[in-house]
Amino acid sequence: MSSGSEIYSLCNKIFPICRSITGKGVYETFDILNDYLKNSGCPELSIHKIPSGTQVFDWTVPKEWTIRDAYIENEAGEHIIDFKDNPLHVLGYSTPVDEWVDLEELKKHIYVQDDMPDAIPYVTSYYKERYGFCMTKVMCDSLPEGKYHMYVDSELFDGNLAYGELIIPGESEKEVMITSYVCHPNMANNECSGPSLVCGLIKYVASLKKRKYTYRFYLGAETIGSIAYLSVNLEKLKKNVISAFVLSCVGDDRAYSIIESKYADTLADRVLTNVLEHRAPGYVRYSFLKRGSDERQFGSQGVELPVVGFCRSKYAEYPEYHTSKDDMTVVSEEGFEGAYGVMTEVIDILENNDKYIVNCLCEPQLGKRGLYPDISKKGSYDSIFAMRDLITYSDGRNDLLDISKRIGVPAAELIPIKNNLVEKELLRAADQK
Amino acid sequence: MSSGSEIYSLCNKIFPICRSITGKGVYETFDILNDYLKNSGCPELSIHKIPSGTQVFDWTVPKEWTIRDAYIENEAGEHIIDFKDNPLHVLGYSTPVDEWVDLEELKKHIYVQDDMPDAIPYVTSYYKERYGFCMTKVMCDSLPEGKYHMYVDSELFDGNLAYGELIIPGESEKEVMITSYVCHPNMANNECSGPSLVCGLIKYVASLKKRKYTYRFYLGAETIGSIAYLSVNLEKLKKNVISAFVLSCVGDDRAYSIIESKYADTLADRVLTNVLEHRAPGYVRYSFLKRGSDERQFGSQGVELPVVGFCRSKYAEYPEYHTSKDDMTVVSEEGFEGAYGVMTEVIDILENNDKYIVNCLCEPQLGKRGLYPDISKKGSYDSIFAMRDLITYSDGRNDLLDISKRIGVPAAELIPIKNNLVEKELLRAADQK
Amino acid sequence: MSSGSEIYSLCNKIFPICRSITGKGVYETFDILNDYLKNSGCPELSIHKIPSGTQVFDWTVPKEWTIRDAYIENEAGEHIIDFKDNPLHVLGYSTPVDEWVDLEELKKHIYVQDDMPDAIPYVTSYYKERYGFCMTKVMCDSLPEGKYHMYVDSELFDGNLAYGELIIPGESEKEVMITSYVCHPNMANNECSGPSLVCGLIKYVASLKKRKYTYRFYLGAETIGSIAYLSVNLEKLKKNVISAFVLSCVGDDRAYSIIESKYADTLADRVLTNVLEHRAPGYVRYSFLKRGSDERQFGSQGVELPVVGFCRSKYAEYPEYHTSKDDMTVVSEEGFEGAYGVMTEVIDILENNDKYIVNCLCEPQLGKRGLYPDISKKGSYDSIFAMRDLITYSDGRNDLLDISKRIGVPAAELIPIKNNLVEKELLRAADQK
Repeated sequence: MSSGSEIYSLCNKIFPICRSITGKGVYETFDILNDYLKNSGCPELSIHKIPSGTQVFDWTVPKEWTIRDAYIENEAGEHIIDFKDNPLHVLGYSTPVDEWVDLEELKKHIYVQDDMPDAIPYVTSYYKERYGFCMTKVMCDSLPEGKYHMYVDSELFDGNLAYGELIIPGESEKEVMITSYVCHPNMANNECSGPSLVCGLIKYVASLKKRKYTYRFYLGAETIGSIAYLSVNLEKLKKNVISAFVLSCVGDDRAYSIIESKYADTLADRVLTNVLEHRAPGYVRYSFLKRGSDERQFGSQGVELPVVGFCRSKYAEYPEYHTSKDDMTVVSEEGFEGAYGVMTEVIDILENNDKYIVNCLCEPQLGKRGLYPDISKKGSYDSIFAMRDLITYSDGRNDLLDISKRIGVPAAELIPIKNNLVEKELLRAADQK
Repeated sequence: MSSGSEIYSLCNKIFPICRSITGKGVYETFDILNDYLKNSGCPELSIHKIPSGTQVFDWTVPKEWTIRDAYIENEAGEHIIDFKDNPLHVLGYSTPVDEWVDLEELKKHIYVQDDMPDAIPYVTSYYKERYGFCMTKVMCDSLPEGKYHMYVDSELFDGNLAYGELIIPGESEKEVMITSYVCHPNMANNECSGPSLVCGLIKYVASLKKRKYTYRFYLGAETIGSIAYLSVNLEKLKKNVISAFVLSCVGDDRAYSIIESKYADTLADRVLTNVLEHRAPGYVRYSFLKRGSDERQFGSQGVELPVVGFCRSKYAEYPEYHTSKDDMTVVSEEGFEGAYGVMTEVIDILENNDKYIVNCLCEPQLGKRGLYPDISKKGSYDSIFAMRDLITYSDGRNDLLDISKRIGVPAAELIPIKNNLVEKELLRAADQK
Repeated sequence: MSSGSEIYSLCNKIFPICRSITGKGVYETFDILNDYLKNSGCPELSIHKIPSGTQVFDWTVPKEWTIRDAYIENEAGEHIIDFKDNPLHVLGYSTPVDEWVDLEELKKHIYVQDDMPDAIPYVTSYYKERYGFCMTKVMCDSLPEGKYHMYVDSELFDGNLAYGELIIPGESEKEVMITSYVCHPNMANNECSGPSLVCGLIKYVASLKKRKYTYRFYLGAETIGSIAYLSVNLEKLKKNVISAFVLSCVGDDRAYSIIESKYADTLADRVLTNVLEHRAPGYVRYSFLKRGSDERQFGSQGVELPVVGFCRSKYAEYPEYHTSKDDMTVVSEEGFEGAYGVMTEVIDILENNDKYIVNCLCEPQLGKRGLYPDISKKGSYDSIFAMRDLITYSDGRNDLLDISKRIGVPAAELIPIKNNLVEKELLRAADQK
């Protein structure tokens, strides 16, 4: 089975769950993800909890939310919408209600998507207590006058905010960090796709025979989760993380996108750009001004991790975003396969991205090592230009990404050439004798 | 009365005076300007004098020039031109003459504007003693053969070069310097407009409740005046001036122009560019190679003040320049209002252009301060992006102008947002605890 | 006689010789070049020898090659090709052979130029011992079945690799290095043109009354010669060479080309670019990725001399390249004259490329020195802008090339203006009191 179809299948399993920033949907999701990892012979995510009320920088961890039931009933006793049909029908973090009202009052508590009349919007109210329902605009507009029963059986209580973390060690304590988030209910691309791809990448990293870097994987609630995570781990992350990637909306097959870091100048920017330019020349660049997921916090003032966002179609930029239309038809095996290909290439390049130097002065005599045509004839050199150029720019000033950019050969294609030269003892990492 | 009409009216008062780089026209002009300042409740310009013959760097302060009368008389006893009709009729710094000559000889002493046959050109000869007259080409071409009486009753004598200076103190000894010049006779845009706008800006600066910077206003003779001023004040200016603006041709309503500093890299370049990009997107940029007014000296080798030129239509670039056509119809209340708006915004931004830092890590929770929508719904964030972006780039590396450029929001619009955040104690200047 | 026709004539003299990277053709060539220098009253190139088998960095100096005779004979006793007709008919460094074979076997040893059927290609095999012949594709395709006599009377033996070197001292031990190569047999543009132009430039440099810099001229075998030369002189070259120029294909009249240095940032890049932009606005820029001559070694990792390549039509980019078509009709007096003009201007600018500072603050009073119009009238200044701009940017930060680029006036045109100002004691080199 291809990695794409494996990740698609995992995405499909966590899709139906009603998640929020807290609550049992989060735990159910982690259970499914860890089952996958366990069955793949990988280490699992460890689950950490932070109690409600904990101060995390400028924020406070909110109460935990449980929802058991929710519907709107008409006078005929019919549930015109029911949470059991689609968790999106209830406002995220809705407080309980059990009240008969007339249509006018009911509509004060209904949210619709004006520009997409047949979609149920995804709406939340984490930090102000209110109750509410979401439905299609078509349905809302067609409701007859009459009495309606608003019913939400939910609870806000002192509980926990949970996140999952897995660290796979490498030779160095320097870290590559890969994250996504698990706070969205049943929507496929945003955001069952991210956690699913993270698990696929855990499997890939765990399978590497040799790792230069340590890999940190994190899944939690968007915004409040990453703030809480940073409040616990900030110093360590600032010290060790050399590149961080926030994965979001990585399952569709329509585009490739990068959200640049704050100053668009980090190793993470360079490596993801190199891969995208090569694999997806029509990819879309968004500046940090277009940030919206956890790169907001990881890249915020004072935190300043070297973080970029990676998406297929970027959140807020595709039509189904944050509605019931973002279902399993939006994502595909091909979509995941593409995203997986990009991120595994990113990892490969990071693992090989040293500054190199040549073990002799002037051009090495490639011919005596069988690396150069032994007859000099017009037009006989083209194939060895990448090798020659890699050699000449391996002067200790440039890492593999610098050289790739300068000579116009994708970094991924330089890796085997570099390995060949290292093996023939013509090249060594600049920090080695 | 609007600032534009007030400045226009002041310009109109100094317009008729016959000024030169020295002489009583300069003093009459300062008197009018100081009357305006006094009537506005402002401090006045103090007048300084440097004697003829004083060595100022590579130059020598020239003799003072007085002119009492000048005309060309024909055989019929008619004054075909007369200095009393228009001071431009006499060559600036003309030596005395009282002689009847034939037409051929007369024409050796007449200057016309070939490309504008009905305009009297503005011509001077400060550093070589000669006499001469200016008239329209039309008149010159129509002069009949005959005898003509060349008459100039003028005098060159050891006197003084005068300049006006006003310093309005602020919290810091660091200075913003604003200058123009008062050596041109009766031409409106170049250059009754500059001194008039300077007085309008003195009134604005004096009215500010709080000034971070000290403001230095200077008016003198172009070139020799600024050289003399520098020779007296160089060390002080080099130590304190953070931005300098030479105002010239600021009364017409056709264009907005900047003359960049020598390396186009000073705070003065940045702030004026920011304002012009916002208020006048079609503004014209001239490199320092196109300099022609006192930015020549203020930005010269070894002096290197952070100086830019600001014009509406730049000198030497509009048709009426340096002719009798540059009269009060070239300038307008609207023209002055626009220039005044630019320069007061420049001042406002400079006063607010600190580097700021946020008082917490990660994004502050704006919601609990009423700065963020309390319900999360697709499309609900647009209005707070400027605030969020100002916050994230307030990491101590960027001043307000840097942030403005980076996030694409005019600096002037960031000031109230910044003030709001400072008031809510989320933001502070980076040099404060 | 113009320099162009003199150099053309020298090129014509060395054209017929059968050269290779070693062997007597090289010595014959040096003899002709030194005759020219001697007859021009110049110092001559001294000839240095490095024995076969010497290790030079990663390479070994090859055996010396002598060829006495070579042909292919058919059954009728006719020499269908003969080395005496054209040295290109034999594979460079061919080992001896004396054997009758059938057509099929013969063709295994024949090289043709597929894309140019009527040209004899230039083919060599320096580092793998083999024998072979070159002919036109037309001839090869028309050979009838039958027996053929392959005959090469050559020898590979322990001998020497020779190079020529001339150092013309200047006031400073800092050096300008100018090189070309003498290893190609009878082809005109590539590469009888380079050594011929080098000799023309030796004559020019020797004629200078005053030289700030020392000039180093080098001619040897491409690749192995420059590696050997570097192995002997590396430390000295790295210490002293401020700009190096590899001349190749400098005799045709179709284009002007620069091959940039490794990072396109050296003084050599700057000066050659300045000259080409001025003299040949349509010139072609090639990045270091397109290197192919000795700039490969001079600019290689660890060596890193500030070296650019200069060509008229670049090697490998014109149709006759590396074939018998590259004959004396490809080059011309005009072609050489143009190349000579570029390189002598390069030398002139280097000799004058100091950072300058002005001996006073503010603008000097040019008028009192007769350098400025003494009457101020609209439009009277244009001609002195270059002087004024040269002065203001002579603040100790910019050399002549910086100023040229900034003010848009060719460096060559700034030299006399600069000299005039130095003579009038307004300007001095920044490193002088």
